[in-house]
Amino acid sequence: MIDLYTWATPNGHKASIMLEECALDYTVFPTDIGKGLQKRAEFLAINPNGKIPALVDHDGPSGDITIFESVSILLYLAEKTGKFLPEKSEDRYRVMNWLIWQAANLGPMMGQAFHFYHYAPHRVPYAIERYRDESSRLLSVMDNQLSKSAYLAGDDYSIADIASFSWTKFGLKFLQEETQGKLPDMLHIQRWLTEISKRPAVQKGVCVPDV
Amino acid sequence: MIDLYTWATPNGHKASIMLEECALDYTVFPTDIGKGLQKRAEFLAINPNGKIPALVDHDGPSGDITIFESVSILLYLAEKTGKFLPEKSEDRYRVMNWLIWQAANLGPMMGQAFHFYHYAPHRVPYAIERYRDESSRLLSVMDNQLSKSAYLAGDDYSIADIASFSWTKFGLKFLQEETQGKLPDMLHIQRWLTEISKRPAVQKGVCVPDV
Ligand SMILES: N[C@@H](CCC(=O)N[C@@H](CS)C(=O)NCC(=O)O)C(=O)O
Ligand SMILES: N[C@@H](CCC(=O)N[C@@H](CS)C(=O)NCC(=O)O)C(=O)O
Repeated sequence: MIDLYTWATPNGHKASIMLEECALDYTVFPTDIGKGLQKRAEFLAINPNGKIPALVDHDGPSGDITIFESVSILLYLAEKTGKFLPEKSEDRYRVMNWLIWQAANLGPMMGQAFHFYHYAPHRVPYAIERYRDESSRLLSVMDNQLSKSAYLAGDDYSIADIASFSWTKFGLKFLQEETQGKLPDMLHIQRWLTEISKRPAVQKGVCVPDV
Repeated sequence: MIDLYTWATPNGHKASIMLEECALDYTVFPTDIGKGLQKRAEFLAINPNGKIPALVDHDGPSGDITIFESVSILLYLAEKTGKFLPEKSEDRYRVMNWLIWQAANLGPMMGQAFHFYHYAPHRVPYAIERYRDESSRLLSVMDNQLSKSAYLAGDDYSIADIASFSWTKFGLKFLQEETQGKLPDMLHIQRWLTEISKRPAVQKGVCVPDV
């Protein structure tokens, strides 16, 4: 059995979508980050970085195994099940490039944009523009990639798509609202979001945790 | 033969250190980011995200293979050579957790701290504090981990250490200067930095490109 520590956020949903896609059994431990549960000693023993999501697989290759960082969770589950990460080196690394790109760029930069639009105690125009512009640039990079292939890393849906889906859906919407429609249309992203949103596993995954 | 497109930065040095550690032959293509070479069409064909480092391996598993994102480069070279990424699942995922942690946290947050201290056109105290505090927190997470084991993911040096080395060396120094010594001592990190700095491959890797 797999224990998933998560909350309803773009990073949390990467893990729950993947678990649903792989049709794995898992128990959800709702970890309310608003109440600071991710900074408690019990949770820090699982993820010393104090952020959701994190996962413990009690049926790991040799007993319990602990995984933190959403993208590490995606890689682990892909390797456990043989799904959504091709074996052939070229295909595998096309997925890897875009997977790590999400972890290192789209996730953190959208996170900063959201912070400065919604959470910062006062308006910091320089930071708002910086992260709005970088997030928009990253969406354009994605849109351009999706003009060439159905999915981020080629013809097939992969963990690279699962990684970028929630941040893109959420980020595109809030950036469009904040910029009052000044963002380019990103039609290829729209097509890709529509496609992925239809997947039953995605529809289930984005409702986790159900609290 | 491997072509490495890089510049003398913490992300660039991850790739050159790993190539040196694996004793692989490679040609360096210095890509001056001050002159914007990373935004030229020739380079965007290699990395559509327009950032160094990127790598083309002409002896890939089935011909040319293109890798972008420093952490994807580390994974690719580790799998190509069988070095610095253990095979046993538990050990492998301990490395993966800390590797992705670097890509998604230490790299981007130190990058923002450096930007607001050194590049932003005017002083933005809120952003300076935000990224100084988050970078310091991340260093404390690392220091705590390094109080428990010789290297980030256990007894052995791995790509998780290579990923974090340059950002930590550089970031700890500039944060200590900027905070006038108010940062905790981070003695475990100091020990780890000293150890890694002695490695001949690291000493060579941090001199790439030699321009
Ligand atoms: N790079 C991490 C980021 C995780 C992350 O930022 N989690 C957020 C929720 S989306 C969190 O736990 N925030 C609470 C906190 O930072 O204290 C991942 O992808 O897993
Ligand atoms: N997540 C990327 C970050 C790469 C990155 O930020 N590269 C910087 C130099 S360290 C760069 O090319 N900057 C120039 C630019 O952004 O235009 C990686 O780890 O490879």
